[in-house]
Amino acid sequence: MWAELEPIGRDGRTGGYRRSVYTPPELELREWFTGAATDRDLEVVTDRAGNLWAWRGDPDADGPGLVLGSHLDSVPDGGAYDGPLGVVSAFAALDQLQSLGIRTARPVAVAAFADEEGARFGIACAGSRLLTGALDPDRARALIDDEGTSYASAMRGGGVDPARIGRDDEALARIGSYVELHVEQGRGLVDAGAAVGVATTIWPHGRWRFTFDGEANHAGTTLMTDRKDPMLTYAMTALAANKQARLAAARATFGRVSVEPNGTNAVPSRVTAWLDARAADEGTLRTLVAALSRQAGDRAERDGTSVVVTEESRSPLVAFDRFLRDRMVAALTVRGPAEEAAGEASGKRGPVRPVPTLPTAAGHDAGILAAAGVPTAMLFVRNPTGISHSPAEHAERDDCLAGVQALTAIITDIAGVARGGPDSDRASTSEPR
Amino acid sequence: MWAELEPIGRDGRTGGYRRSVYTPPELELREWFTGAATDRDLEVVTDRAGNLWAWRGDPDADGPGLVLGSHLDSVPDGGAYDGPLGVVSAFAALDQLQSLGIRTARPVAVAAFADEEGARFGIACAGSRLLTGALDPDRARALIDDEGTSYASAMRGGGVDPARIGRDDEALARIGSYVELHVEQGRGLVDAGAAVGVATTIWPHGRWRFTFDGEANHAGTTLMTDRKDPMLTYAMTALAANKQARLAAARATFGRVSVEPNGTNAVPSRVTAWLDARAADEGTLRTLVAALSRQAGDRAERDGTSVVVTEESRSPLVAFDRFLRDRMVAALTVRGPAEEAAGEASGKRGPVRPVPTLPTAAGHDAGILAAAGVPTAMLFVRNPTGISHSPAEHAERDDCLAGVQALTAIITDIAGVARGGPDSDRASTSEPR
Repeated sequence: MWAELEPIGRDGRTGGYRRSVYTPPELELREWFTGAATDRDLEVVTDRAGNLWAWRGDPDADGPGLVLGSHLDSVPDGGAYDGPLGVVSAFAALDQLQSLGIRTARPVAVAAFADEEGARFGIACAGSRLLTGALDPDRARALIDDEGTSYASAMRGGGVDPARIGRDDEALARIGSYVELHVEQGRGLVDAGAAVGVATTIWPHGRWRFTFDGEANHAGTTLMTDRKDPMLTYAMTALAANKQARLAAARATFGRVSVEPNGTNAVPSRVTAWLDARAADEGTLRTLVAALSRQAGDRAERDGTSVVVTEESRSPLVAFDRFLRDRMVAALTVRGPAEEAAGEASGKRGPVRPVPTLPTAAGHDAGILAAAGVPTAMLFVRNPTGISHSPAEHAERDDCLAGVQALTAIITDIAGVARGGPDSDRASTSEPR
Repeated sequence: MWAELEPIGRDGRTGGYRRSVYTPPELELREWFTGAATDRDLEVVTDRAGNLWAWRGDPDADGPGLVLGSHLDSVPDGGAYDGPLGVVSAFAALDQLQSLGIRTARPVAVAAFADEEGARFGIACAGSRLLTGALDPDRARALIDDEGTSYASAMRGGGVDPARIGRDDEALARIGSYVELHVEQGRGLVDAGAAVGVATTIWPHGRWRFTFDGEANHAGTTLMTDRKDPMLTYAMTALAANKQARLAAARATFGRVSVEPNGTNAVPSRVTAWLDARAADEGTLRTLVAALSRQAGDRAERDGTSVVVTEESRSPLVAFDRFLRDRMVAALTVRGPAEEAAGEASGKRGPVRPVPTLPTAAGHDAGILAAAGVPTAMLFVRNPTGISHSPAEHAERDDCLAGVQALTAIITDIAGVARGGPDSDRASTSEPR
């Protein structure tokens, strides 16, 4: 599977991926998903928000099932693992059960959530937010990308009817629990010396758009004292964000900037910059953003410019389902086939060690579902450098296989193993695909 | 003429113009130029660099002529006057002579230089630089715009053969002298209380590309201390540029920025920013850019990033042709019909006042031609706010008419009035167009 995905949306120069939602590479990934599911006799359903589901078993008839998955889209120039690893590993875990002749008692699905990165329209986890009702459909439809295309129009291009988006209770009712496997985006597992780990919480985080307005003018003839240059206000704010985040042991980043008119010989009329901020608790995050907004406003007064701060999205602290988390930790810690394999893969032997648990400062669809009351957990796969959202993002093959083994153990534990019946016979005699 | 140009390349939202070289609006302006010239029985020639010339009389047979003109392209979201005012005023001055039945002794042309703003490919005055050999043809052909289109390919789209660009001695030999009328890009004429003024010098100026390289990473999970964030190095450099320019009574602007990957939740891998710097003398300019490069490098060391500074273009101090300048000042100061009209338009009466002379910090094709040894002068038309490179750029109608009157006076003075002959008869009896 990995080889099929490798060329899709790849930038020949950087080796990074450009797979924004409803762009041609992302649509190709969706086709790949449907093909992979169909090859495995899974039933593919696209929900009203454009998220993809591939079901084994019927959740409407047999009750809510266990959903495994992640997302397929990427940040601009992102890595290969962030998202696709969770989807590919879920398919691989189903393949492994199939080859072992194991059928689950409850339905199981592989999910690919739409637009997790929010790279194109600015709202992260838009697919799961629409599904759970956390994102207002009118607001979503009206979002505009850098080319001036609306989200509604992009959805239509992807075969999703924008008139039908909104909280989807039918799709939600099918999810008994959701487990998202993801490449770690830090070095927690490197420090712990483990191939896989289980998530405890997601830090509260959000995106704020800072719009700095000034006055366009000629870069040569306009006296420095006559300028209303919003670039200066922005530059001070970017430096202040870094300083405030260091002081608060939080994170603050200005990674996206848009300048108007963006001409070498023109003082800009407007600089728009997006702040990504995260902290271990809500109070710290709130204080950080408030302090930055105040500093930006003070500087704007000195520069003769103005600044407006708009909250684009905000996610509260997410504590993953404790029951599910403990069960996953137990399933991965008890010496079973999956743990053996994971232990072997990580090069660790000897006494059984509990699988590490760790918080994350990255947002995920799992966090959105958890906030909506779905029992949710996350599994991380070690990232040797800790680098992500970059072509340098990486996971070793053995660690990826340990992730698949872990998912396999979780499926048999959570979805249960079916005994007897014709399907069971068929499964045990069929060839692995 | 003004009404014909008004809608071309206009942004409906801002009211500004987007007329970068060889884009559809700019090609439309070229067609307009050819039509306007043909309507006036002028012979249109496109030189090898893509500059347009509309000749009355034959400079190859009758010797070098007087060229009037400017450019038609704009910065992104620029004003209506910067460039087109000089071209339209030149046509209007020829119309006025025609309606007065005056024929010139020497050939006269209207010129529209290609790509004065350099908004698309980063090199200002590319058309006149190619004409005079100040821009290397290989370098020009290889320039790439933001969409990845090469200058060579853009030229072909505009009907210009990129294989033939390079110093064009044939076209240069036709220019006896060049007078560029331009809206003032500051408030010098407002302070002087005059509708028009004559340029003395152009400040030395240039463009430097600052490439800040860091390491892309996840904006949430990467510890602040683990980052190599080039945005911080850029932000400090932008603030330093402003401060250094104030201290040196010079100008320094970062108005154009490009961020990679430009995702809200990604620490950037690269920030590219263009410095536009200008000063009254070469030494001040050199010192300013050197100080900024040093400060950027020092900060890069602290940020774990790197910075490379590349000079994209640099223009030395230009002193306009003293003989031509003095003659223009005299022609505009002596109480003649043109001066009467200009005086009336500006609301000034009474004793004859010398026309103001003033330096400018803006680059122009006139500066490139002057540096190449062409006798060159510039005429400025008052700009009430001093704002330019912005939709707010403006010139009052009466001041524009004063500019046309001034050009008319300059044409009769420099190109001389032909006496007798059948053409003269025809001109004096023909109707104004």
